[in-house]
Amino acid sequence: MLPQPVLERLCRIRILLQELAEKRETIDSSALAEITGISANTIRKDLCHLQGLSGSKSGYSIKDLSTSLEKNLGLGTEKKVCVVGLGRLGSAILSYPGFLPAGYLLKAGFDADINLIEIIRTDVPLFPAYQISEQTRRLEIDFGILAVPADAAQKSADRLAEGGVKGIINFTSSVIRVPENIAVRNVSFLHEFDMLSAIISRM
Amino acid sequence: MLPQPVLERLCRIRILLQELAEKRETIDSSALAEITGISANTIRKDLCHLQGLSGSKSGYSIKDLSTSLEKNLGLGTEKKVCVVGLGRLGSAILSYPGFLPAGYLLKAGFDADINLIEIIRTDVPLFPAYQISEQTRRLEIDFGILAVPADAAQKSADRLAEGGVKGIINFTSSVIRVPENIAVRNVSFLHEFDMLSAIISRM
Repeated sequence: MLPQPVLERLCRIRILLQELAEKRETIDSSALAEITGISANTIRKDLCHLQGLSGSKSGYSIKDLSTSLEKNLGLGTEKKVCVVGLGRLGSAILSYPGFLPAGYLLKAGFDADINLIEIIRTDVPLFPAYQISEQTRRLEIDFGILAVPADAAQKSADRLAEGGVKGIINFTSSVIRVPENIAVRNVSFLHEFDMLSAIISRM
Repeated sequence: MLPQPVLERLCRIRILLQELAEKRETIDSSALAEITGISANTIRKDLCHLQGLSGSKSGYSIKDLSTSLEKNLGLGTEKKVCVVGLGRLGSAILSYPGFLPAGYLLKAGFDADINLIEIIRTDVPLFPAYQISEQTRRLEIDFGILAVPADAAQKSADRLAEGGVKGIINFTSSVIRVPENIAVRNVSFLHEFDMLSAIISRM
């Protein structure tokens, strides 16, 4: 398993390549460094982890590099996702247009408030929260997004785990406990602000 | 300057301590490990970076540890923040109740669509996007949140930089270029999904 920071950088490079692919055919590590803000040396080391990738004097073929990143990172196959908690953040996520082009199919939304489910206008099927396990299992959902209040986080995570999801993006401020075979990514506005504060206080 | 991963962990520990403070008075590294999922050994090493912190046999006083983290991380002083882009995500951020208790004061919102500004109901003052530099300077805003479409990201970042902000949370899929004295945190749904995919494919 590659170290987390390497995975983070490789995933970011892949997203950027998708935009670049319309503009150019090859790229070298200096140009990648310029675009990503990561040092060229680090990028060269990171790309060494990719199996089956070969560069030339003019750099890497963007198409080959993208394909190699997809294969090595396990991307490129469609994944089914759901949103738990349909408050303002959850609703915003429901209408985010970027998932489908990237291969993430939004298959379900859940909320404990049944009235809310009837009010929200969306093409995504919505269900009451008590059906999370049943529906995620039926729909074979891979990943869940947790956008519930902090005190509902663990119960929702338990239901997702029970439904067989493989990964959770946790937008709540609570730490969630899940079985070891489920991956968790914690995303928090407050954490990002705190990191900015910490970084600028040390500049 | 502490390495980024150490800062990340220390910031997360501090947020968790705020919840714990209501429930107990002391905590040791094993209990912190249990709660955070970080190893006790890593936590002990991370806490060694904190100046002026002392533990005892019963662990750390939660109050002392919180104070030390705040001082060392440059937290605990109020920061003024703004949101640029008031679509669904930006609007959701406008109504997020967690900023104020954590010391982040939401002082302004901006959008290029003047009609939108008149429609949104909020106590936060809203301005047209062309006033970003002028208003962020006048209001002495520290941090900006970018929630605009990808093709408006760089221009909005330029305006925030011109207005003197010290940090930007970038929710767009674009890489933004800013002067070196401005800290940037990139947050992306797609990146989080890609990381989940990469992690589970390597489990």
